[in-house]
Amino acid sequence: LVFAHRLADAAAEVTLAHFRQAPAVENKAGAGDFDPVTAADRGAEAAMRAMIAEAYPEHGILGEEQGEEPARGAGRWVLDPIDGTRAFVCGVPLWGTLIGFEAAGRARIGIADQPYIGERFAGWPGGAEVTGPRGRVPLRVSDCRALATARLGTTAPDLFAAGAEQAGFDRVRAKVRLIRLGGDCYFYALLAAGHLDIVVEAGLKPFDIVALIPIIEGAGGVVTTWQGAPANSGGPILAAATTELHAEAMAVLGG
Amino acid sequence: LVFAHRLADAAAEVTLAHFRQAPAVENKAGAGDFDPVTAADRGAEAAMRAMIAEAYPEHGILGEEQGEEPARGAGRWVLDPIDGTRAFVCGVPLWGTLIGFEAAGRARIGIADQPYIGERFAGWPGGAEVTGPRGRVPLRVSDCRALATARLGTTAPDLFAAGAEQAGFDRVRAKVRLIRLGGDCYFYALLAAGHLDIVVEAGLKPFDIVALIPIIEGAGGVVTTWQGAPANSGGPILAAATTELHAEAMAVLGG
Repeated sequence: LVFAHRLADAAAEVTLAHFRQAPAVENKAGAGDFDPVTAADRGAEAAMRAMIAEAYPEHGILGEEQGEEPARGAGRWVLDPIDGTRAFVCGVPLWGTLIGFEAAGRARIGIADQPYIGERFAGWPGGAEVTGPRGRVPLRVSDCRALATARLGTTAPDLFAAGAEQAGFDRVRAKVRLIRLGGDCYFYALLAAGHLDIVVEAGLKPFDIVALIPIIEGAGGVVTTWQGAPANSGGPILAAATTELHAEAMAVLGG
Repeated sequence: LVFAHRLADAAAEVTLAHFRQAPAVENKAGAGDFDPVTAADRGAEAAMRAMIAEAYPEHGILGEEQGEEPARGAGRWVLDPIDGTRAFVCGVPLWGTLIGFEAAGRARIGIADQPYIGERFAGWPGGAEVTGPRGRVPLRVSDCRALATARLGTTAPDLFAAGAEQAGFDRVRAKVRLIRLGGDCYFYALLAAGHLDIVVEAGLKPFDIVALIPIIEGAGGVVTTWQGAPANSGGPILAAATTELHAEAMAVLGG
């Protein structure tokens, strides 16, 4: 965990140098499908990879920008230097640097860092905390147990696959108390902090979610796929404050 | 402007005491239509009203929470203690305290304050600046002149009136480079700062927009209704970085 904080410090130096600096935006996905990648994204991942290679050469690394470096042991770092590149490009301080560590295939340590606000969420087996404008505060999910009283977060309401996936989300959305859009990783952190009760998204990659699992679980929450499988392979993700809320949402998502 | 900063300081004391504190949420609009109002909202407006009544008893006040206090002169303060109450309720630090001052029916001074991040955007005739994590920085819009290269911000993509209004927004959305959701007043501030190029919303009240007009105009941007009328009466609002972009968007919105 201490080393993970050092990685986050190194990444923040790179990302903040580019945030709100009109960075050159490259088009990773080709002309028809806009997916901004900034120099910050690549620089921050390279900095973290170099530190890991030196400190833990036996560990594997999976990063958003530079792919997989196989492990020679049981540990793997899962990195997303800038989760929420669109937020980053638009100056919105809700992107985050995600740093996860898996041991024996389970997410054990996670950090979600928002260095412009100066907020860092961290989780480990049995606990989670945020350090930020109000100092060091333990994270604890809300006690919301039903969709009818739940605050739902999702990055965009129309990013679900047409058909069953979009229909499932729309059913959940129709049942909740309120919905908030545009959060990326920050919404999972707010769930851990007790300010959102449920986050429903789809199409996540492992590096979008692994770092967030220990934060959510360390705060007492539940995070799985929509089908109840472990979340660390990504896919359609459902995070909830309580097992009751999680179970109700899973039933509604499945029809 | 100095007095407006004092109002923002006073409001921040009240709002921050309630932000992320699980405030009691009342339901202003009745059971069927969720519209959270917090003690923070009411307390902050009351604090600002008391200061104005003492310092400038001849000025009018229009506030989101407590309605209109008619002017005995030409000046009017237009206040929204918490623009983005849903963001506030969900712990998202993109809500803002909006403080506008109109003289002779024109918005002259504006402040948008986000005290959790510690960012305050201010505008006046001829200039605009932000103070925050990076000190004091002049605000300047981008030089984006066409929808094809524009970054669009809007709080929610489905809050437009069915029919011509929704269709107009959908046409603009289809033409821009990227869209970002969930911003409330913060998106107008990001436009003034050059990080978003266009903001399109509808159904705004005067207290949602008056404070933002001097910030956008002071940074070199353009803000009117979709029909090109002065923005300070609210309604469907179009803000853009350049006159060229504004004209293209207005044409597309109108069909």
